[in-house]
Amino acid sequence: MIDSEPTDPWGVPRLELFERLERSLEGDGERAVATVVGVDGSAYRRPGAKMLLGSDGSTYGGITAGCLEGPLREVAGEVLADGSPTVVTFDLTDDDDGWGLGLGCEGVVDVLVEPVDDSWSDPVEAFGAGERRATVTVVDGTDSLPVGARTTVPAEGEPIDPDDRPAVPENVLEAVLADARERAADGRWERRTVATDGGDVDLFVDGIEPVKRLLVFGGQPDVRPVTRLAREVGLEVTVATARGAQADESSFPRADRVVATHPSDLGDLVDDRTFVVVMSHNLLDDRLALEALLSTPAPFIGLMGPRERFERLRDDLQEESVTLTDEDRDRIASPVGLDLGGGEPVEIALSIVSEVLAVSNDREGGRLRDRAGPIHERSPSEPSEPSPPSD
Amino acid sequence: MIDSEPTDPWGVPRLELFERLERSLEGDGERAVATVVGVDGSAYRRPGAKMLLGSDGSTYGGITAGCLEGPLREVAGEVLADGSPTVVTFDLTDDDDGWGLGLGCEGVVDVLVEPVDDSWSDPVEAFGAGERRATVTVVDGTDSLPVGARTTVPAEGEPIDPDDRPAVPENVLEAVLADARERAADGRWERRTVATDGGDVDLFVDGIEPVKRLLVFGGQPDVRPVTRLAREVGLEVTVATARGAQADESSFPRADRVVATHPSDLGDLVDDRTFVVVMSHNLLDDRLALEALLSTPAPFIGLMGPRERFERLRDDLQEESVTLTDEDRDRIASPVGLDLGGGEPVEIALSIVSEVLAVSNDREGGRLRDRAGPIHERSPSEPSEPSPPSD
Repeated sequence: MIDSEPTDPWGVPRLELFERLERSLEGDGERAVATVVGVDGSAYRRPGAKMLLGSDGSTYGGITAGCLEGPLREVAGEVLADGSPTVVTFDLTDDDDGWGLGLGCEGVVDVLVEPVDDSWSDPVEAFGAGERRATVTVVDGTDSLPVGARTTVPAEGEPIDPDDRPAVPENVLEAVLADARERAADGRWERRTVATDGGDVDLFVDGIEPVKRLLVFGGQPDVRPVTRLAREVGLEVTVATARGAQADESSFPRADRVVATHPSDLGDLVDDRTFVVVMSHNLLDDRLALEALLSTPAPFIGLMGPRERFERLRDDLQEESVTLTDEDRDRIASPVGLDLGGGEPVEIALSIVSEVLAVSNDREGGRLRDRAGPIHERSPSEPSEPSPPSD
Repeated sequence: MIDSEPTDPWGVPRLELFERLERSLEGDGERAVATVVGVDGSAYRRPGAKMLLGSDGSTYGGITAGCLEGPLREVAGEVLADGSPTVVTFDLTDDDDGWGLGLGCEGVVDVLVEPVDDSWSDPVEAFGAGERRATVTVVDGTDSLPVGARTTVPAEGEPIDPDDRPAVPENVLEAVLADARERAADGRWERRTVATDGGDVDLFVDGIEPVKRLLVFGGQPDVRPVTRLAREVGLEVTVATARGAQADESSFPRADRVVATHPSDLGDLVDDRTFVVVMSHNLLDDRLALEALLSTPAPFIGLMGPRERFERLRDDLQEESVTLTDEDRDRIASPVGLDLGGGEPVEIALSIVSEVLAVSNDREGGRLRDRAGPIHERSPSEPSEPSPPSD
C-alpha cells in the first residue's frame, strides 16, 4: 500500500480509487461515490467509471473531462445530507457555451450518486482479493423500490444483500441474476429494465473487475522503472527477488510488496490475475522461475532479453523433459514488451507495462488508427459493430 | 525544468541526464561521465548510453544492470583525480560468480570515462536546443593522440574543437567527417579505425539525438496524466491551452512549460522534433489547431477522440478548401494512441505516450515477440540481419 498522496487526484487509477474507497468505508476520506450508469452519445468515461466526493467539496478520481465536477459536488452534498442515493441526468446535447462542441460532454450522461456505506464493503474487499463481483443497483425505481437499492452478485456463490440499504428483491434479481454473474466474471456492465407490479425498474449491473497484479521477478535497478510505471497505471506490484539482500522495500519504493523467494517457489505468489515479468538477468534463476510459472494459471509470462536467450531457456527446459504447450507459448512474451524502439531503462519499462495492459485487455498493441471498429469494448447491452444489437 | 530530485536516479531518462550534465558543466553535480563505446556479446545498454559519476561515489543514470557500477566508481575517482579520459574494458565472458549467466553482462564492454569539461558544452546546448550533433572521440590513441581527444560535428556546419582538451586532428577527422554528419543527423553511433603515421586510431562516433518534444494542446484534467507519463519517459513537455485561465503551471506540475495561446498560433511552438497531441475537447479549437499544425513540420499530430470526430474535423477543413495530403494522413494519428484497451485517464495517457515513443523511433507498437529481427536498431557499423556486414 502506497501512503503518499497522489499529485493528481483526478487522474488516479482504479486501484487507488478502491484503496481510497476502503479508507472511506473506515470513515476517513470522501463519503460519496459517483458512478456513470448510462451514456447516450459522446462521453468522456464509460459507464462504471467512478469518482469520490467529499462534503467539503473535495474529489478523488474523475468521471468527466471537467464539465460536470461542479454540479456533481452539489449533488454529492445533498446526498450526504439526506443519505439517499440519487441518479442525476446531465443532458449536454443543447449545451451552447462551447463545451458541447465535442468535449465528450455532448451526450446525455446518467450518474448515480450515493453515500459510501456498507453496500460497498463486499465489492471493495473482493476487488483487493482478486474476486469477481457485480453490483446490481436500482437506478430508476418505483414507490416501493427506491433508487440505490442494491444486491451484490459474485461470479460464483450466493448474492449478498447490504445491511444498511434496501436489497434488490428476489423476484427482480431473478430476472438478471445469470447475466449479473456473467458481468461479474467479465467485468463489463449493462442496463436492464425489469417489469414489476409497481411498474418498470431500471437496474445498472456493474461488473467490477478486480485488481490486476504484476509480479516482477528480479532485483536489479531496472526493476524500479517497471515497478514505478506499473503502479502509476494501477497495477498492484510485487517484486520478488532470489537474492535476499535485495529484498528491501527501500530499493523498490513504489512496489506494494517486496519478497525474497527461491525462483522455484514463485508459484506461491501467482493467481490467474497475476501478470509476471521475469527479469532477474540470471539465466539459471530465470529458468527455475519459468519452470515454476508454467504450472501456475498466470495469464502472462514476460521474459526480458533477446529471442535467442529464450530459445536457450526453452532448450534447457526441454532437456529436463519440460515441453512448452501451445497455451504456454501463447502466454509467454519473449522478448517482453511492445515494439516502441527505445533502449533506455524507462523506455523498456514503458514497453513492458504497455504490453501487460494490452494483454490484460485482449489487445495486441499496435496503433489505434490502424484498428477497425470502436476503441472501447461495448457493453453486452450496447449495439456492437458490425453485428446487429443482441437484445 | 523540473527541480525535484528523481526518486530513482538510476532510471532517469536521457532528458534528465542531459539536464544534470548541464548542471555539472556549471560546477554543480557529478563531474565524470561514462559512455558505453563498444559492446561485444550481450550487454544491458547499447553504445552511446551514459551515466554520471561523482568523486563522492554518487551516480546518476546507469549503463549496466548493476554489475559494473562499483568498478566504474573507482575508475571515475581516478579520472577525476588526474583529469585524463580513459577507456576501460570489462570482459565478463569468463565471469564465474553467477552474474555472467545471462545478466546482460556476459560480453565485453568498453566504457569511456572522462571529466565533464568544456568539450561537453556544445553537445549539451545542442541537445536542449533540438540541434543535431555527433561527438568524435579517440577511444584508442597513439603517443601523440590521446584517448579523449574530441571534435564535435554538427549535422550541418563546421566541426567544433574543444578549448580544454585535444581536438581530433584534421587529417583524422577528414576520414570520418561525412559519416559523422550522418550520425549527427540520425542519432546512431559507430566505431571507426583510422590509420595515421603514429599507428591506428580508434574513434567512437556518438550521434546525440536531441531532446524529443511533446506539445499537448488542451487544458482539461486529462492533460495531466499525459504530461506526467511523457515527462517520466524523457519527453520535454509543453502544455498549450486556448483558455488563458487554465495556463497555470500549478495545474500541470510536470510540464516544462505551460502557455496560453490561440489555437491558430500553435505553429509557433512546433519544430520538426515536436510531437503534438490535440486534446482540447473543443471541436472548434481542435479544428483551428489542426489547421495551424498542418503547415508545420511536426512529425506527429495525434487527435484525441473517436474516428468519427476526426472525420468531421476533416470535412470541416475540406469546406475551407484545406485538403489533407498523403503526408498529412501519415503523420495524423486519430484515434490517438496504441491499442491497449484501457479506458481510464492514466491508461489513455499510457497509450498516447507509448505511441509517441513508437513513432519517434519508426515503430508501430505491436508486440515484440511478433516482430522479426533484432529488438534494437543496429549501428551502421554493426552487422544487420539479414543483410551482410556493410564494412
